[in-house]
Amino acid sequence: MARNGQRLRELSLRDLTVDDGFWNERLRLVTDEMIPYQLDTLMDRVPGAPPSRCVRNLRIAAGLEQGTFEGFVFQDTDLAKWLEAVAYSLTRKPDPALEKTADELIDLVCQAQRADGYLNSYFSTLHPGHQFCNLKEGHELYTAGHFIEAAVAYFEATGKEKLLVAMCRFADLICRVFQSPEYEDAVPGHEEIELALMRLYETTHRERYRAMAYDFINRRGTTDYLSREAEMPRFIDVWHDRNPYIPEYGQAQAPVREQTAAEGHAVRALYLLSGMADAAGSYEDEGLLDACRRLYENVTQRRMYITGGVGSSGTLERFTADFDLPNDSAYAESCASIALAMFSKRMARVTGEARFMDTAELALYNTVLAGVALDGKSFFYVNPLEVTPSFCKPATDKAHVEPRRRKWFGCACCPPNIARTVASVGGYVFFTGDGELRLNLFIGGTYKARLGETPVTVTVQSELPWKGRVSLEVKARECLEGRLLIRIPDYAENPRFTLNGASLDPPVEKGYAVLELTGWSARASFDFDMPARLFYADPRVPADAGKAAVKKGPLVYCLEETDNGETLSGLQIDPEEPLSERFEPALLGGVTVVEARGQRTVWDGGLYSAKPPGRTPATLRLIPYCFWGNREPGEMAVWMRLKC
Amino acid sequence: MARNGQRLRELSLRDLTVDDGFWNERLRLVTDEMIPYQLDTLMDRVPGAPPSRCVRNLRIAAGLEQGTFEGFVFQDTDLAKWLEAVAYSLTRKPDPALEKTADELIDLVCQAQRADGYLNSYFSTLHPGHQFCNLKEGHELYTAGHFIEAAVAYFEATGKEKLLVAMCRFADLICRVFQSPEYEDAVPGHEEIELALMRLYETTHRERYRAMAYDFINRRGTTDYLSREAEMPRFIDVWHDRNPYIPEYGQAQAPVREQTAAEGHAVRALYLLSGMADAAGSYEDEGLLDACRRLYENVTQRRMYITGGVGSSGTLERFTADFDLPNDSAYAESCASIALAMFSKRMARVTGEARFMDTAELALYNTVLAGVALDGKSFFYVNPLEVTPSFCKPATDKAHVEPRRRKWFGCACCPPNIARTVASVGGYVFFTGDGELRLNLFIGGTYKARLGETPVTVTVQSELPWKGRVSLEVKARECLEGRLLIRIPDYAENPRFTLNGASLDPPVEKGYAVLELTGWSARASFDFDMPARLFYADPRVPADAGKAAVKKGPLVYCLEETDNGETLSGLQIDPEEPLSERFEPALLGGVTVVEARGQRTVWDGGLYSAKPPGRTPATLRLIPYCFWGNREPGEMAVWMRLKC
Repeated sequence: MARNGQRLRELSLRDLTVDDGFWNERLRLVTDEMIPYQLDTLMDRVPGAPPSRCVRNLRIAAGLEQGTFEGFVFQDTDLAKWLEAVAYSLTRKPDPALEKTADELIDLVCQAQRADGYLNSYFSTLHPGHQFCNLKEGHELYTAGHFIEAAVAYFEATGKEKLLVAMCRFADLICRVFQSPEYEDAVPGHEEIELALMRLYETTHRERYRAMAYDFINRRGTTDYLSREAEMPRFIDVWHDRNPYIPEYGQAQAPVREQTAAEGHAVRALYLLSGMADAAGSYEDEGLLDACRRLYENVTQRRMYITGGVGSSGTLERFTADFDLPNDSAYAESCASIALAMFSKRMARVTGEARFMDTAELALYNTVLAGVALDGKSFFYVNPLEVTPSFCKPATDKAHVEPRRRKWFGCACCPPNIARTVASVGGYVFFTGDGELRLNLFIGGTYKARLGETPVTVTVQSELPWKGRVSLEVKARECLEGRLLIRIPDYAENPRFTLNGASLDPPVEKGYAVLELTGWSARASFDFDMPARLFYADPRVPADAGKAAVKKGPLVYCLEETDNGETLSGLQIDPEEPLSERFEPALLGGVTVVEARGQRTVWDGGLYSAKPPGRTPATLRLIPYCFWGNREPGEMAVWMRLKC
Repeated sequence: MARNGQRLRELSLRDLTVDDGFWNERLRLVTDEMIPYQLDTLMDRVPGAPPSRCVRNLRIAAGLEQGTFEGFVFQDTDLAKWLEAVAYSLTRKPDPALEKTADELIDLVCQAQRADGYLNSYFSTLHPGHQFCNLKEGHELYTAGHFIEAAVAYFEATGKEKLLVAMCRFADLICRVFQSPEYEDAVPGHEEIELALMRLYETTHRERYRAMAYDFINRRGTTDYLSREAEMPRFIDVWHDRNPYIPEYGQAQAPVREQTAAEGHAVRALYLLSGMADAAGSYEDEGLLDACRRLYENVTQRRMYITGGVGSSGTLERFTADFDLPNDSAYAESCASIALAMFSKRMARVTGEARFMDTAELALYNTVLAGVALDGKSFFYVNPLEVTPSFCKPATDKAHVEPRRRKWFGCACCPPNIARTVASVGGYVFFTGDGELRLNLFIGGTYKARLGETPVTVTVQSELPWKGRVSLEVKARECLEGRLLIRIPDYAENPRFTLNGASLDPPVEKGYAVLELTGWSARASFDFDMPARLFYADPRVPADAGKAAVKKGPLVYCLEETDNGETLSGLQIDPEEPLSERFEPALLGGVTVVEARGQRTVWDGGLYSAKPPGRTPATLRLIPYCFWGNREPGEMAVWMRLKC
């Protein structure tokens, strides 16, 4: 545990205001575009987008409208995540009209809630009186978890208790049911409730929520409940999936403490791990934390794309095998990278180790941001690292790969998940602990915290992700006494620190530079070089062998056809030539472009030929991966062949 | 058409005896191992293999056994293909006991046949009285086609008419039904009947069979019968597939004469094309032949693996898009390469152009042969070009790729298809035409034919595929007058010919060297160099970019882990270094091994690293692809990274 069990905490979003050259536009997009757009989709008001029916389903459940439930069994969660995004947005930009809409939707949710606390529009309308009869596929605990997260967020943002109280009643019901004899070995099919109950515990301090989360975690892999469930009298079939349950798919291949690899559905696995990290920290459970560390290493050292994408198989949206990371058929669901960021942030918080934040940042800046278009109105569910549009053909192995973002999805888990994640990015920036402040992500803004007993305001200025230049000003009304820790990211070269104008060579603790603060205010700076660099992959990843990718700071770069012509696979990069960088203010809202020297294959054979291909010099132009697919549709590639 | 409409013909297998250093063992395997083994599987006598129920189903249909049909709707075809293989085997090695068994099974087939000629154990037992009520999925015409092929083969091999007469009755029923008003726009869901009816026409000369085949071909793509079928009163659901019919999947995206690319299910597409080529030749239909040429070019220049594998998507076993040829998730069904060989042979026959035989030979020597183990008792359905066994995980995108051959399959189309194809390889060797003999494949043996009016016996000796050395002796009882055409394969370097001991530089006609024969006998030789060569792929194939493959003559080579250690993707070949070859008589029954110089990646980073990988010199050892997977299980790769 960090600092002898002294837990680190995030700042409340009410105590911070992001003001950052890079993130302001991302946050504006959430508030001004994504939240209104997504509300329209949830209310079936977007022409050309698949109908969501989300709000309508809840109205039917509340008895306000006649009709039949439509959509996925977890359709309610789209509203839950939207409410969570709204909560975060309101902390940044008060909006009485939006808050009123949210209040009304919360009223609707409460009307759709059963007297005993149960909430789920699918089961309440299609199978009234039935509950928790299909944990494998029914997603009731997953849905509950998202509403609990929304309730906590809305309470923290607005101080309004209505949804929180309602969700406490739901949580109480869950605790009663899942501690009863007939459910004593039951676990959720799709994890999420664990981290949500931990979050509810941290807000309410009700021990039973924490205990229930811990129980769910400890049960997993020790019971065959989900395999037996379809034979139970209470079972209600949902998806008519005749295949036997695959324990590995649901992270039940072994008790969680004994697991050695992250398996199965990637979002489930990483939501579980997020809850596990929370519980490990809260219970100071070293064994559970060891499992988290082991699985984190497995994910990040064997099963993660360089973009922070995880879960390479479109079949079952899952982890597959170590080093099986195909680029052109990658699944790498947006939600899975969100979950990876959530897990990594928790690991950094629980362990005090900065390196976990490298992964959180990687996932956020690349796959999560790539999930939404620059207009905030179309989304990627799947995040490949290589796209040839003609290959992305329906009813083939690459049908899941889409070369263009879509307005919405029948299964729309990703868009509101991206919204709530981007909206809450300020929560990643600082941790507070016992007499210390830790700067994790380099995102400008004003952050209020306590350093020891002293309230302080930290103003951060950052030129990330384009330049390694960060400055902080810490102001207090009392004399400062404490430590300012600054994460040294994995990409920082030649790090240079100043404190109150003087250079210093601070000690480094678990990846954080430690600056001792004294006086009534302090100014610190952290400068480093972060030139674009070529990266190579372990040769056990066949898809990346003989190739290199460009990273600059936290950003992964890619080639697009619109900049480089067709047949990107005919381009090769020369690793001996320097990369050049240029900030282009008019491009994609302002990005640093990287150019590389290399060559292009010249081919005059048929499909196969014994005549070696010719070469002609070429310049390769790369843009940040998170902004791909915002211009002409075409090919895209992260990994480039090395000159040969 | 070849030679002004003068069609070329294959030799009957009764008129030839293959005696060849390479093929004798392959043919022995069919006769001594595959035929007995496959009979055991069809009769459910192989422990550990999935039960076939094939013979049992027919016994139930014949009223000889009680029970319920089990297996796929096309389960009967496994017996049909087996009977065809037996027919060919009997021409090579008479076996009264085997022939008696085959006769008894033919008796069973005839007992299972309905009075009106209809034969299909699935529909006869599960839906008695119903027929042709689900052309999309019911496979009745496909099954009929295979029994017709078996009947023709058995008649040709043994002179016995029983099955042929029975299948003519079935064909007559098909002609009546599918020329009737309610079926006038109907087409088979899975093609095969077209080529089978053409074959039946060639044996019986009954015009109605040819006309029916031609009708089926000409209807395809002009009617929405298969899309409408599920709404018809007579429709019987078979696979409970709720997805709408995809015309492209069934080669119905356009009338066949207007199609520009081979689409959909690869076996269906290539069986259709085989029938189209037959019909184009028979009817001297230049428009249809143009379509065949266009689709042949599309397949072989844009959609074919270097191994002759076709149909890259596991989803729907289908063609996808030009240049979408992933190696590690390749489907490349064994049956699809069989179908490609069939189509290519027909194109060579109809056009008289040798180059089509390059493709037939490629498919036969690589993907088709790879489909069966060296003991004849296990089989590949899917033929990847790159395998990492740990990636081939159930319930993932690569679940269809199997790193080891299996004893049998629930859907067992491939094993008996391989048996009948290998058993009939002698039929590919020569074509006879107007005053000419054409040597297509270099397979030793004794071949009897007519040259003009003169019966001749040609003895071929060949050192293929290890050496480019072929000699022929043509003997006749009369004075020879005619042309001996010898295919110059695409891999022949520095071809050298002799005729009756004298070197000559023969004219080349459509890829065949033309030798004029005179006198009472003739001796000819064809020598050429065929060193192992590196091949490169069009850079529009992303999976092969920056890589090379080794071919020697018709054989594609591959790396196996057992020879090269693990992590084959860490190996790189140096194209500047010469390839060395060595025949190893003790290896895999005797193969020429190729060795290449290159290097191996040395890696000490994590999953991704900015530190360039190191290199250490390495020797790469390659074996023929057709023999992979016969030793220690492990990784395999056809395409190797180029040194960089």
